[in-house]
Amino acid sequence: MLPSVTRCSTKLLVYTHRSGRKIKEKVAKMLEIKKLLGDEGQAKFVLKCPKGTRDYGPRAMAIREKVLRIVTDSFKRHGAETIDTPVFELRDVLMGKYGEEGGKLIFDLADQGGELLSLRYDLTVPFARYLAMNKVTNIKRYHIAKVYRRDQPVMTRGRYREFFQCDFDIAGQYDAMLPEAECLKVIDEVMSALELGDFQIKLNHRLMLEGMFAVSGVSDSEFKTVCSSVDKLDKVPWDEVRAELINEKHISEQAVEKLEKLVRMRERNNSLSNAQLLDCFEKDSETGVHTSVKKAIADMRLLLDYCVLYDVEKRVVFDPALARGLDYYTGIIFETVVKGYTAGSRSGDATDGVIDENSTNVGSVAAGGRYDNLVGMFSQKKQSVPCVGVSFGIERLFSIMEMRAELEKSAVRTTETEVFVASAQKNLLKERMKLCKLLWDNNIKAEMVYKANPKMLTQLQYCEERLIPIVLIVGERELQEGVVKLRNVEDRQEKDIPLAELVDEVRIRLANGTRR
Amino acid sequence: MLPSVTRCSTKLLVYTHRSGRKIKEKVAKMLEIKKLLGDEGQAKFVLKCPKGTRDYGPRAMAIREKVLRIVTDSFKRHGAETIDTPVFELRDVLMGKYGEEGGKLIFDLADQGGELLSLRYDLTVPFARYLAMNKVTNIKRYHIAKVYRRDQPVMTRGRYREFFQCDFDIAGQYDAMLPEAECLKVIDEVMSALELGDFQIKLNHRLMLEGMFAVSGVSDSEFKTVCSSVDKLDKVPWDEVRAELINEKHISEQAVEKLEKLVRMRERNNSLSNAQLLDCFEKDSETGVHTSVKKAIADMRLLLDYCVLYDVEKRVVFDPALARGLDYYTGIIFETVVKGYTAGSRSGDATDGVIDENSTNVGSVAAGGRYDNLVGMFSQKKQSVPCVGVSFGIERLFSIMEMRAELEKSAVRTTETEVFVASAQKNLLKERMKLCKLLWDNNIKAEMVYKANPKMLTQLQYCEERLIPIVLIVGERELQEGVVKLRNVEDRQEKDIPLAELVDEVRIRLANGTRR
Repeated sequence: MLPSVTRCSTKLLVYTHRSGRKIKEKVAKMLEIKKLLGDEGQAKFVLKCPKGTRDYGPRAMAIREKVLRIVTDSFKRHGAETIDTPVFELRDVLMGKYGEEGGKLIFDLADQGGELLSLRYDLTVPFARYLAMNKVTNIKRYHIAKVYRRDQPVMTRGRYREFFQCDFDIAGQYDAMLPEAECLKVIDEVMSALELGDFQIKLNHRLMLEGMFAVSGVSDSEFKTVCSSVDKLDKVPWDEVRAELINEKHISEQAVEKLEKLVRMRERNNSLSNAQLLDCFEKDSETGVHTSVKKAIADMRLLLDYCVLYDVEKRVVFDPALARGLDYYTGIIFETVVKGYTAGSRSGDATDGVIDENSTNVGSVAAGGRYDNLVGMFSQKKQSVPCVGVSFGIERLFSIMEMRAELEKSAVRTTETEVFVASAQKNLLKERMKLCKLLWDNNIKAEMVYKANPKMLTQLQYCEERLIPIVLIVGERELQEGVVKLRNVEDRQEKDIPLAELVDEVRIRLANGTRR
Repeated sequence: MLPSVTRCSTKLLVYTHRSGRKIKEKVAKMLEIKKLLGDEGQAKFVLKCPKGTRDYGPRAMAIREKVLRIVTDSFKRHGAETIDTPVFELRDVLMGKYGEEGGKLIFDLADQGGELLSLRYDLTVPFARYLAMNKVTNIKRYHIAKVYRRDQPVMTRGRYREFFQCDFDIAGQYDAMLPEAECLKVIDEVMSALELGDFQIKLNHRLMLEGMFAVSGVSDSEFKTVCSSVDKLDKVPWDEVRAELINEKHISEQAVEKLEKLVRMRERNNSLSNAQLLDCFEKDSETGVHTSVKKAIADMRLLLDYCVLYDVEKRVVFDPALARGLDYYTGIIFETVVKGYTAGSRSGDATDGVIDENSTNVGSVAAGGRYDNLVGMFSQKKQSVPCVGVSFGIERLFSIMEMRAELEKSAVRTTETEVFVASAQKNLLKERMKLCKLLWDNNIKAEMVYKANPKMLTQLQYCEERLIPIVLIVGERELQEGVVKLRNVEDRQEKDIPLAELVDEVRIRLANGTRR
């Protein structure tokens, strides 16, 4: 079933006697080919997680649960319900929703007879499908689950092929910008609670992009493809975007130059307030009279007003270069970047295996926007349900938190055990078991070692390593006297407790901050 | 992208003018063929979840979270850590682990270049892979996640293609039967807490099966295939199993008859205690001298001893017919059945769409056993790590709980909102927003309606429907006086509270059982 674990090609060894980058490249190429051979490759069984995925060990899980708790708390504080959907959807449900780049990254299931299925790419499209299918026209819901993208993984930066999204969405016909403002407030709450340092919420509007493109001379039919290029601006320099637009997408040089002036307006006027930058667009002879731009400006002004009320305006930066590569946005769009962790530029696009280990660029950690037409695409009667939402890319946050825990060498408890039941002498196994039962049945978290005759020292060491606060020690003498010895792990103080008072005594000690 | 939603074949309508079962069958067959046509089928876009999967709406989620909380609490009470693994594994990792039947049910991912992947079929094999990969030789861990099987779904009985498993496993070299006893204790705790009525834990041993098969004249090479037939005994009558063994698997009639006497021993001696039934096997001239059977009997006697200590012996029924279709078990195996919900027999195998709606047979809800060699299969040095564990099939529990909630029409809260902020007059939107911010920033769960001028009655109705305990009402008069009107939703009592005391007042009311 599992063939021998290592069987290296001897040819490769010959090559590696030479040196230099070229050889390395050749080896990589050959390994790639080997992999593509499929059946051949199977002969060598490597014990690993699939490319771009990871296990979470107990320490990582403790951190993950802390992050998810912060996120969930905020979602619930804002009155959201939660739903869950299957990990895969009918392929037709996902098709055509994720723009030029996204579509290529969808994981398909094999056709084993029956429906054609794909793994979910995000939680937004399944949410829209759910609304349409159940004819729900208004709901505030959160959904925390894993999504799947066949992207080039960069594990050290938290870019995985399987990763968590934590989505908070408000669906329903409501007054302008109120749901948007709440989404930004939620971002502010979560990011502040995570204590990851300074962060920024970039803000833009689909209609602003449409307007800028239109006045630059980009045709409607080119909107999506130009958007997908502009979307790369946070990762690659303008020259590269410009080259792509002109050479690959055949946009005229003139249009690209005009476009540049508009989309790079924030970059060139970094000191301007949001209101001032909006003024620039309003006063401009072309954008200032364009209907789409005017609507976008009005929306953003109102939203910024509400942001002042919610005290998040200081986090928000209107940036006309923010594009977001997804097809379904129709209004406000936003994206959160942790400031200390934005390296930006080329290094972010390292290919697999060639990773800048020192970089901590985690990119966008929370993004979203308004998508008023997505539900209608699934609805029989094309009934549209206006929606706006935010999605937290939590793996990137895990990466930061795990790195920090590693640096701080902080003790992370991976269990919640309150009491360890030990014995000093032999043949007290059944007494230990009875004591454990007593504790469990009284809802006290307890453990013992699964050995008939364990060593006392081993048991105590286990408790100190695991930060278990209380040890109960059963012994012959104690049994005869009807007591159990209670040991406080931190200060090593011991005291005999009558069996009848044991549960209460343990409870009191646990309630009083366990380790006193 | 999404073609028109309905386009029914008119031919079908002609058929349905006739009547009777035959027509129904024909229609079903035609629909099946239509589905298989694939491309043809795509022309008709049906808005649905993939076959055998479901959405969880807010009510279902509230129930699900309650069940998961009970399970997790018990796992933590026993000192378990938690881990998580990817939803898919390298295909090679899963191959050959799930017996004759299981292997056919694995969901494969499409080959899109790169590794060959499959969705996880359970959490046990990924756990073993994790242990081998990280060279972990002892851990007590739980893992709660979805697994995938291309089984024939029976949704009303909670049999899905995507379903939760909640696994609790103890890995490590320990004294006999201690980890097994703790697994049974965990089952008892969880099943009791769920209050699903009476339940039974069926118990058997891999070596008991091997011994019974051997003395019956079944060869070692036939073990797996005979096991897989015997495993069906809880769903189909013996005659069918017998026919399968003789006609399909070519076991001699003589061997099958001998085997029957042994595996149906519990069925024929239902009044015997576990110890008495073990005595029968011990006294039998053939099984009583068979090394495997003797070892199995000794193990089970010790385990039953420990079960008395943990007060779970009353739940346990030794049943030599319990087979469990998985290859990897090496010792004790067990399976929990909720008594009131065991219909058993043929109806359990209904094909898709032909479902006995009245049945509530949910089959096995918690099962597991010892698997000492699985980790070794993944280990380079074949280092084995002894393991034992239990897996809760939680979807079946959801089904029961959801049915019950439906029957009892019990009010299930789907949000945790504590305060609703309302206004009576127009133009108080910003005041409501400020109040919400105050509450959120003080960690109080609050909502308001996203309308500038909402109707008072609508707002109050919303609170009563949603069981939100407190409403804060902002009005012109109240604003001038520096107060907010606090309304208790349950008894509709109202009182003015000075703004400065508001947060404290709300907190006190929430702490004192909200609805007083």
